[in-house]
Amino acid sequence: MTFPVVGMVGGGQLARMTHEAGIPLGIRFKLLSDTPQDSAAQVVHEVVVGDYRDLDTLRDFARGCDVITFDHEHVPTEHLRALEADGIPVRPGPDALVHAQDKGVMRERLAGIGVPCPRHRIVSDPRDVAAFAAEGDGFPVVLKTVRGGYDGKGVWVVDSAEEAAEPFRAGVPVLAEEKVDFVRELAANVVRSPHGQAVAYPVVESRQVDGVCDTVIAPAPALDEEQALRAEEMALRIAKELGVVGHLAVELFQTRDGRVLVNELAMRPHNSGHWTMDGAITSQFANHVRAVLDLPLGDPRPRAPWTVMVNVLGGDYPDMYSAYLHCMARDPQLKIHMYGKDVKPGRKVGHVNTYGDDLDDVLERARHAAGYLRGTITE
Amino acid sequence: MTFPVVGMVGGGQLARMTHEAGIPLGIRFKLLSDTPQDSAAQVVHEVVVGDYRDLDTLRDFARGCDVITFDHEHVPTEHLRALEADGIPVRPGPDALVHAQDKGVMRERLAGIGVPCPRHRIVSDPRDVAAFAAEGDGFPVVLKTVRGGYDGKGVWVVDSAEEAAEPFRAGVPVLAEEKVDFVRELAANVVRSPHGQAVAYPVVESRQVDGVCDTVIAPAPALDEEQALRAEEMALRIAKELGVVGHLAVELFQTRDGRVLVNELAMRPHNSGHWTMDGAITSQFANHVRAVLDLPLGDPRPRAPWTVMVNVLGGDYPDMYSAYLHCMARDPQLKIHMYGKDVKPGRKVGHVNTYGDDLDDVLERARHAAGYLRGTITE
Repeated sequence: MTFPVVGMVGGGQLARMTHEAGIPLGIRFKLLSDTPQDSAAQVVHEVVVGDYRDLDTLRDFARGCDVITFDHEHVPTEHLRALEADGIPVRPGPDALVHAQDKGVMRERLAGIGVPCPRHRIVSDPRDVAAFAAEGDGFPVVLKTVRGGYDGKGVWVVDSAEEAAEPFRAGVPVLAEEKVDFVRELAANVVRSPHGQAVAYPVVESRQVDGVCDTVIAPAPALDEEQALRAEEMALRIAKELGVVGHLAVELFQTRDGRVLVNELAMRPHNSGHWTMDGAITSQFANHVRAVLDLPLGDPRPRAPWTVMVNVLGGDYPDMYSAYLHCMARDPQLKIHMYGKDVKPGRKVGHVNTYGDDLDDVLERARHAAGYLRGTITE
Repeated sequence: MTFPVVGMVGGGQLARMTHEAGIPLGIRFKLLSDTPQDSAAQVVHEVVVGDYRDLDTLRDFARGCDVITFDHEHVPTEHLRALEADGIPVRPGPDALVHAQDKGVMRERLAGIGVPCPRHRIVSDPRDVAAFAAEGDGFPVVLKTVRGGYDGKGVWVVDSAEEAAEPFRAGVPVLAEEKVDFVRELAANVVRSPHGQAVAYPVVESRQVDGVCDTVIAPAPALDEEQALRAEEMALRIAKELGVVGHLAVELFQTRDGRVLVNELAMRPHNSGHWTMDGAITSQFANHVRAVLDLPLGDPRPRAPWTVMVNVLGGDYPDMYSAYLHCMARDPQLKIHMYGKDVKPGRKVGHVNTYGDDLDDVLERARHAAGYLRGTITE
């Protein structure tokens, strides 16, 4: 057997779905998981339970793996360099991944290659925030810790210098950004392999609720074809310039005055690409695996005119399984993806995909199912 | 967590692909596998290695499972009854499964409910075979041991009473059947749940080489619509009359004179349904899981005008992974499904699916990829 061993660091749902996509390739999949109960640890055969922040644990895990990839961006950069020095391919590599780990580094680099970003600057204290505001259109200003934030955590929107104290308490550098006057959020998902092949998925619209992704529509409705193409090209260029290997999600703001600005980068399969599991010829997970193994990439084109993904968040009652009866009977075409996670209010515990010719119908079906699973719709 | 535990007996590729299809449902999947290296054992978290012929092993395994289902039909009927007596739902149950285990029982039952079958009779020795031949159109006659055969094993085509000695040596009852003058083989795949819901996949054409399934075309080309409908209805009726729960494959002969006769039954996901993984809205594996859990079934309709499956058999060289480079680069829409099995000549080690609008193109792509993986095509 010459089939390779892919080592996945992190046991969340992205690892779970990457394993699912890797099974047909006949590869071996090894998981480094925080706990034996993690989402992916429930469904993967070879699970090592350990702390990815510990270099010895990482090194032990990486031994015998042909490549290491990630469920999240939290592995310390210096650990990744150590693995590379040991001769283990790390994909994406530390030089690329740092742009998804550190928003300050990301902004500097994107500005350096001419990618349109919101106005931004590293700020040192609330007075500096006030100065940043005064240089532009004033408050509100968005403040972000450069490391450690996700799903709206580590992000503040402040209306005055007085409100700007909290972000500085963590002792992490803080990035100030203009609050972009956007009409909607988009995402451009691309996948790139070590030898430089890259594919772009159609640009999607991503709708957030309370800072958490709620709905993704593929392709983004009523997006100018030229603008969609420019966004795809921009994501491909970022992947190339930053040397990304694997999946890259570029979260975008579409502004009222028609520009497209980069919000965030993620270098792993991404919530805005979950629709591809049922809606694209090759899913983001399958292409991520192919990319980290330097295999030719699969066709990223959609299989249906419209695909909609809606996240299933934890609600007030914990028994989502009983909701399957209603959801599956109501919509035999519905695609449910649950992550094996305990239900906690607001926690992403799954998503649903629907697809078809009529966007209103596709949207309604996905929203109904996600709402029923969560318990906010009961009829 | 109220998500159920599905216990799968048997660690082959059907179990592997059933697990893959079960991951999105968030269920727990437990495997009873002959060895730790079995196809499914490589990718499932909870694996018990043991012998399914041992009742104590089965009972230990079934404890804590909400339902038991199967990768194969070899579990002794009396063991299944014992599990049922212990209060464990067994799906399909022993009263149904016996029809897929014993060809004699199957023929008697199908004849009893008026399902068209080849002329057949249990025979006791070579002289009896000659008598059976004389009652019809003479030799050749097909002889089958009523239990234990698959993929052409346990089946003989004999031209005389002298050739008919071997099938009787095993001491298993032997079924004689007319050698049907068929123009092609078809398969009708249906799925039925305990509360009686059932769905039918489109009837497919199944092409065998040396008694082993080689190519499946969905739907069967140039099949009269009325005839396709009758075949689907027949499969649904068999599932209902026999009380099948889960996937039922009805292998069919289409005769030169326009009749459709039942060849074999399989009560589990089946090679003739592998195309559904990429070609149907809901795969046979997903629907099998839904059926054994008594969940509403998913839509069985095709997603493309044509889907073709070609099996990848082991060839002369063991390194199929290196063939991925060519196959994936040549056809970015190709779907490869490898089973993690060591290559042995003639062994089913994987399959490929292709789909599209043009049957010739879809067939060519699948054949090329399967041939290249096997090593019989090198350019």
